[in-house]
Amino acid sequence: MKKLSDLGERKAIEIISEILSKGNEVIGIGDDCTAYDMGNKLLLISTDMITKKTHIPKKMTPWQIGWFIVAINISDIAAKGGKPIGMVLSIGIPKDTTEDFFKKIIKGAENCSKKYGFTISGGDTKENTELTISGTIFGTVKKENFMPRKGCKPGDIVVVTGNLGKAGAGYYAIQKNIENKKIIEELLEPKPRLKEGIVLASKKIISSSMDISDGLSSSLYQLKKINNVGFKIYKNKIPISKKINNFSKKNSYDIYKSALHYGGDYELLITMPKKHFKKLEESIKNIDSKITEIGIVTKEKNIKIIENQVEKKLENKGFEHFK
Amino acid sequence: MKKLSDLGERKAIEIISEILSKGNEVIGIGDDCTAYDMGNKLLLISTDMITKKTHIPKKMTPWQIGWFIVAINISDIAAKGGKPIGMVLSIGIPKDTTEDFFKKIIKGAENCSKKYGFTISGGDTKENTELTISGTIFGTVKKENFMPRKGCKPGDIVVVTGNLGKAGAGYYAIQKNIENKKIIEELLEPKPRLKEGIVLASKKIISSSMDISDGLSSSLYQLKKINNVGFKIYKNKIPISKKINNFSKKNSYDIYKSALHYGGDYELLITMPKKHFKKLEESIKNIDSKITEIGIVTKEKNIKIIENQVEKKLENKGFEHFK
Repeated sequence: MKKLSDLGERKAIEIISEILSKGNEVIGIGDDCTAYDMGNKLLLISTDMITKKTHIPKKMTPWQIGWFIVAINISDIAAKGGKPIGMVLSIGIPKDTTEDFFKKIIKGAENCSKKYGFTISGGDTKENTELTISGTIFGTVKKENFMPRKGCKPGDIVVVTGNLGKAGAGYYAIQKNIENKKIIEELLEPKPRLKEGIVLASKKIISSSMDISDGLSSSLYQLKKINNVGFKIYKNKIPISKKINNFSKKNSYDIYKSALHYGGDYELLITMPKKHFKKLEESIKNIDSKITEIGIVTKEKNIKIIENQVEKKLENKGFEHFK
Repeated sequence: MKKLSDLGERKAIEIISEILSKGNEVIGIGDDCTAYDMGNKLLLISTDMITKKTHIPKKMTPWQIGWFIVAINISDIAAKGGKPIGMVLSIGIPKDTTEDFFKKIIKGAENCSKKYGFTISGGDTKENTELTISGTIFGTVKKENFMPRKGCKPGDIVVVTGNLGKAGAGYYAIQKNIENKKIIEELLEPKPRLKEGIVLASKKIISSSMDISDGLSSSLYQLKKINNVGFKIYKNKIPISKKINNFSKKNSYDIYKSALHYGGDYELLITMPKKHFKKLEESIKNIDSKITEIGIVTKEKNIKIIENQVEKKLENKGFEHFK
């Protein structure tokens, strides 16, 4: 009898999508959000669950736990070019949790939602063995602006927002007990790319989009499967901040391993025709952010990483639950 | 330092509502659903979480677990007079869960949603120590049909759909190891009152409405607080099916204790002006269902239960988590 530990999280989601029948939704399971036709807009819905065991390191404060569950839900709306309307939370919590700890979770959630222009409108609390929080966010996007996962074509370029390797550095610092508040904060207090997503979507030139929550390699493999294409990624083009670069040098760990394979960066991964890139780069600069071209979509259905003109297969090492 | 076990679930929800700021929602925390203005309709959202420890008896099959999480979410939409559009599920599941068990949960969820005219459009699976499922349902209702919790006035009558005491009988059978599939099914496979809710709402005469998920006494105390009123409930008017009545007699347990205090019946509790009752009763009969008048809303802010002309205080003994 097969167990979920043999199958992994993504296979589990495949099982779900095989059993569930298609309904009125325009976009169903397998994208960052599901989408429903509401006239000239789409209603976007996304849900994310975090648990003590899998997502909440010991260093994480209750305020950060609250911030985190809201931020990662926003990231799914951002990846579709949407704007959040609101969110509901279900909190499973151990009996001996203090009132203060609980309040700080709610405060963190409130602060994050406020920062991104919406509020949490409801929730449920239940007793649980392990701290478990499920958030469901809903938002809207103009139909013509919606950025699906499916749509990229060979020849499109591959682009990411911001910098990668932040979450990996944070994990490293926590694991090695390195006191570096700023590095750890980048892991524990992700800043979803909401305004970037809205600008990207408004140009109507993005051929596919998803967030990189599971790591770059894993995200590329997911896009490969959906779009039946491959990718070439240029290793030295992967954007890494000076701060993270210095941190990795000082601690002599492989920054590219983090940037390629660690989940938790919550940047956006998009594809688009190259001819529009320069103008888009400018628009994103205007909102004090950045995008970087890191590769190309290929007809050959494999994913290569290129360093000093040498091509290697990019392994799919992204984190997966159960396994 | 106060713990959640000292506070209880409803106090925890109060804490949440104190911290969260009011946003664009028309109806926020403290009702069965939150509601957002979408022009001539309201978007309704509700979330419910169940865990192995608190909601999933050993007798419950995985198919029933899937059915249950969907059914109890539908009940919240039903209580507002809405129609579901779709639902997303987050499933926290132990590593050693078998593929078959997992598939049956999804199948149960799919079957329940199909039965009630919508589909589950997405979800998330995560590893958890304890089986934990959070469902978020969304639907719509015409603005003028929305049935809030707040609105009842002294003199309104108190009405319930269907029969009570079903869940209590199911608990009893499970606890005492009585093999009675039909009785236990009423607890484990609740049938939310969706079509009833839609008919009730369409008449625009309901002054307040909620589902009885936490038990009748608990629900009345919640309505009392929101509406600043009291209630008189006539014990012998509480509708109990022949099947449940016979079962309770045979096993000589107090059926009224179940009907008044046990959660899990998922009927609707509504208030309305008495003059409309007869016509409404007819309309509900036309969809093969029933409503029963069980009491009256009073100016005096207490809740009385009346039996053989003797008034007693109705205790608030509804089940509450953490406590």
